[in-house]
Amino acid sequence: MTEFSFTLHKTDGQARLGTVRTLHGDIRTPAFMPVGTVGTVKGMYMDQVKEAGSDIILGNTYHLMLRPGAEDVAALGGLHKFTTWDGPILTDSGGFQIMSLSKIRRITEQGATFASHIDGSRHELTPERAMDIQRLLGSDIQMQLDQCLEFPHTDKEAEKAMQLSLRWAARSRKAFGKQPGRGSFGIVQGGVDEALRRASAAGLIDIGFEGYAIGGLAVGEGQKLMLQTLDFTTPELPEDKPRYLMGVGTPDDILESVARGIDMFDCVMPTRSGRHGQAFTRFGKVNLRNAIHATDNRPLDEESSCPALSKYSRAYLHHLMRSGELLGMMLLSWANIAYYQELMQGIRLAIAQDRFEEFRRATKQQWERKQ
Amino acid sequence: MTEFSFTLHKTDGQARLGTVRTLHGDIRTPAFMPVGTVGTVKGMYMDQVKEAGSDIILGNTYHLMLRPGAEDVAALGGLHKFTTWDGPILTDSGGFQIMSLSKIRRITEQGATFASHIDGSRHELTPERAMDIQRLLGSDIQMQLDQCLEFPHTDKEAEKAMQLSLRWAARSRKAFGKQPGRGSFGIVQGGVDEALRRASAAGLIDIGFEGYAIGGLAVGEGQKLMLQTLDFTTPELPEDKPRYLMGVGTPDDILESVARGIDMFDCVMPTRSGRHGQAFTRFGKVNLRNAIHATDNRPLDEESSCPALSKYSRAYLHHLMRSGELLGMMLLSWANIAYYQELMQGIRLAIAQDRFEEFRRATKQQWERKQ
Repeated sequence: MTEFSFTLHKTDGQARLGTVRTLHGDIRTPAFMPVGTVGTVKGMYMDQVKEAGSDIILGNTYHLMLRPGAEDVAALGGLHKFTTWDGPILTDSGGFQIMSLSKIRRITEQGATFASHIDGSRHELTPERAMDIQRLLGSDIQMQLDQCLEFPHTDKEAEKAMQLSLRWAARSRKAFGKQPGRGSFGIVQGGVDEALRRASAAGLIDIGFEGYAIGGLAVGEGQKLMLQTLDFTTPELPEDKPRYLMGVGTPDDILESVARGIDMFDCVMPTRSGRHGQAFTRFGKVNLRNAIHATDNRPLDEESSCPALSKYSRAYLHHLMRSGELLGMMLLSWANIAYYQELMQGIRLAIAQDRFEEFRRATKQQWERKQ
Repeated sequence: MTEFSFTLHKTDGQARLGTVRTLHGDIRTPAFMPVGTVGTVKGMYMDQVKEAGSDIILGNTYHLMLRPGAEDVAALGGLHKFTTWDGPILTDSGGFQIMSLSKIRRITEQGATFASHIDGSRHELTPERAMDIQRLLGSDIQMQLDQCLEFPHTDKEAEKAMQLSLRWAARSRKAFGKQPGRGSFGIVQGGVDEALRRASAAGLIDIGFEGYAIGGLAVGEGQKLMLQTLDFTTPELPEDKPRYLMGVGTPDDILESVARGIDMFDCVMPTRSGRHGQAFTRFGKVNLRNAIHATDNRPLDEESSCPALSKYSRAYLHHLMRSGELLGMMLLSWANIAYYQELMQGIRLAIAQDRFEEFRRATKQQWERKQ
C-alpha cells in the first residue's frame, strides 16, 4: 500500500524541489494545481489538464457538498471515477467559500451554518463533517476546516479566527484518522500578523499534519504584504512536510513564493482569465480582446508544445472572443494552464540545476519585454 | 489540379452512395456537414469534428462578412488556415440568415440590404458580392444567393421569391466563374408547391451548377410536408450531381431524406441541442438535465468509439449541465456530432450492402426502444 509521503530532493536558496507521494500518484513540487471546483477544470478536458503537465487538481468541498452531494459522489464511485481524473486530488474544506460565496453564514464553536448560493437551502459544516465529505469524495489531500476572514479585518478578529481554526484543526485531524496513501493538511491563519502566524503554525505542528497550508492570503492585501507574511511564516513550518499557499496566484506571485519556500499552489486565475480573453505567456499577459490582434497571424507562442499556444493565430483567438464563442474560452483556458505548468517545469528544472535566481530574473525580464 | 466532381457509386432504392471530390479532399455521401457558423463548430475542437467522421464543415457568409470580414479572412490566408480546418468547406450565401437574423431587410432585384444583428450597421449583399465573399473565404462549395421565405407564405410570394432566386442564380453562377477544385450550387426554391419546385429545378439546370440544393424547407412546415416536397422535387434533379437538403435536420429527417435521394445535409441541431443538454444516441433522445440521470453511472453508449459517448457517466453529464459547466456543453456537442456521423456511416454501409430499407427500419425501432 502506498504511504503518503514528502521527499525534499534539494533546495536552492529557499526554493525547494520535492515529490509528494499519494495513493493516486506522485506530485512534482513546486506544483501548480488547476482548480476543478465542481468536478471539472472549467472549459478543459482532463487529458489536456494532464498533458499540460498537471500532476494534481483541486476540488471544492463546499460546491460538491451542495451539488451533486458527497454521498451521491461516493455512491457513483468517488470523485476520481466521477470526473475521469485518475491522478491525485486535493479538496479544500469549504472554509473559504463559506466566507466568499454563501449567504447568511453563522460561525459558532461547533462549526459554520450557511445558506447555499445556489438555492438558499441551509447547511451546516463542522470540522468533522468537512473531513467526512472529503473522505466520501475520495480526496488524496484533505484540508482542515478553517475560518477565513476578508481583508481588511481587525487584529482581534484575526486572532479570534486563528484560535477557532486551531481548535477546528485538532478536531479535523482527529476526524481524518488514518487513511493510507492520503494526507490531511492544517491551515496556518493569522492574517498579516507575525505573532499570530507563529502561534498558528506552532499549534498546528503540535497537532501534527502530513502537510501545512498557508491560508487567508491573496484576499486583497496585495502582493507586498502577502510576501512579507510568507517571509515570517514559512520559516515556522517543518522542512520535511509540503507547504501549500492557498489560492495563489499570478505567475509572478508563484515565482516569488517559490523563492520563499512554498511547494504547492492553486488558483482559478488561468482558467478564469482565459474565459475572459486574457492569456498568460512567456512574453507576459496578452488581452486577446484588443483590436490590435485582429490581423495578427502569429500564434501566442510558436515554440510551445501546447497546440492552444502554438497552433491558433491571435487573429482567430481575437475573433472567437469577440464573437463570444466557447472555443475561445476553451483555447485560452488550455493555453493558460499549459503556460502555468511550463512555468512550474522551468522552476523545477532551475532548482535542480542550482540556477533558480537566474531563472527568476530572466523570466521576469521576458514578461516585461513582451512580444 | 483536382477537378470538382461527383461520382455516384450505387443506389439502393432512391438512396445514393457517392463521393464529392474537392480541392481540399473527398466527401463521402450521404454526408452530414457540422455547422461552423463563424469559423468554429461551437464547443468543439476541429480534431474532434474530423475524428467523429466529418468530411466537410459549413461556414456562414452572413456571419463571416460581418465579423471578422471576408477581406480580413482572405488576408489571414483564408478560412481553412484561419480555423485550422483543412478539409472541404461549404459556405452558404447569406440568404437564409438575412431572412432569419438581420433587421430592417429590403430585397430588390439588385440584391438584399439589411442591418447587422450584431451592431445594426447597414450592409448590401448582391449575388455577385455573395460569390465574391465566398471566393475570398476560400470555400470549396459556394452557394448562390437566394431569397428565403418564412413559412407560412402565400403562393404568390413563393413564386415571386423563386423567380427572383432564379435570376440571382444566373448572376451567381456567372460571378463564380471557373475555380478549379471548387464548385457552385444552385438552390431550388418554391415552397411546398410542386409546379414552382419543378420550374425552379428546370431553371437551375438550364444555368448549370456543380450541385443542387433544396432550400426553403425545415422552416416550420413540418416533416410530412417537407418529405412530400422532396418526393416531387428530387426526381427533377440530375442524377449525376450532388443533392443538398439545406438546414436538415433530426436523425429521422436525415434517414427519410436519404430514402428520397438526398446526398448532403447540414444542421445546427446536434451542437445546439448539445449545449442545451440533449443527446442524440442510438437509443433515441436523452435529456441529460432530467433528474433521472443524477445517479446513473452508465455512459450514453458504452459501445461507441467516441469518448464523449462512452467514457463519461450520465450522472456526470447531468451534474455538468445542472451546474452550467462548459464541459457539459462541450461533451454533448461532441457526442451528438459523433452520433450523427455514426448514423451517416451506417447509412453509407447499408446502401453499399443493398440493405438500406432494413437499416432504416431497424434504426427507427432502436430509437423507440430506448435504453
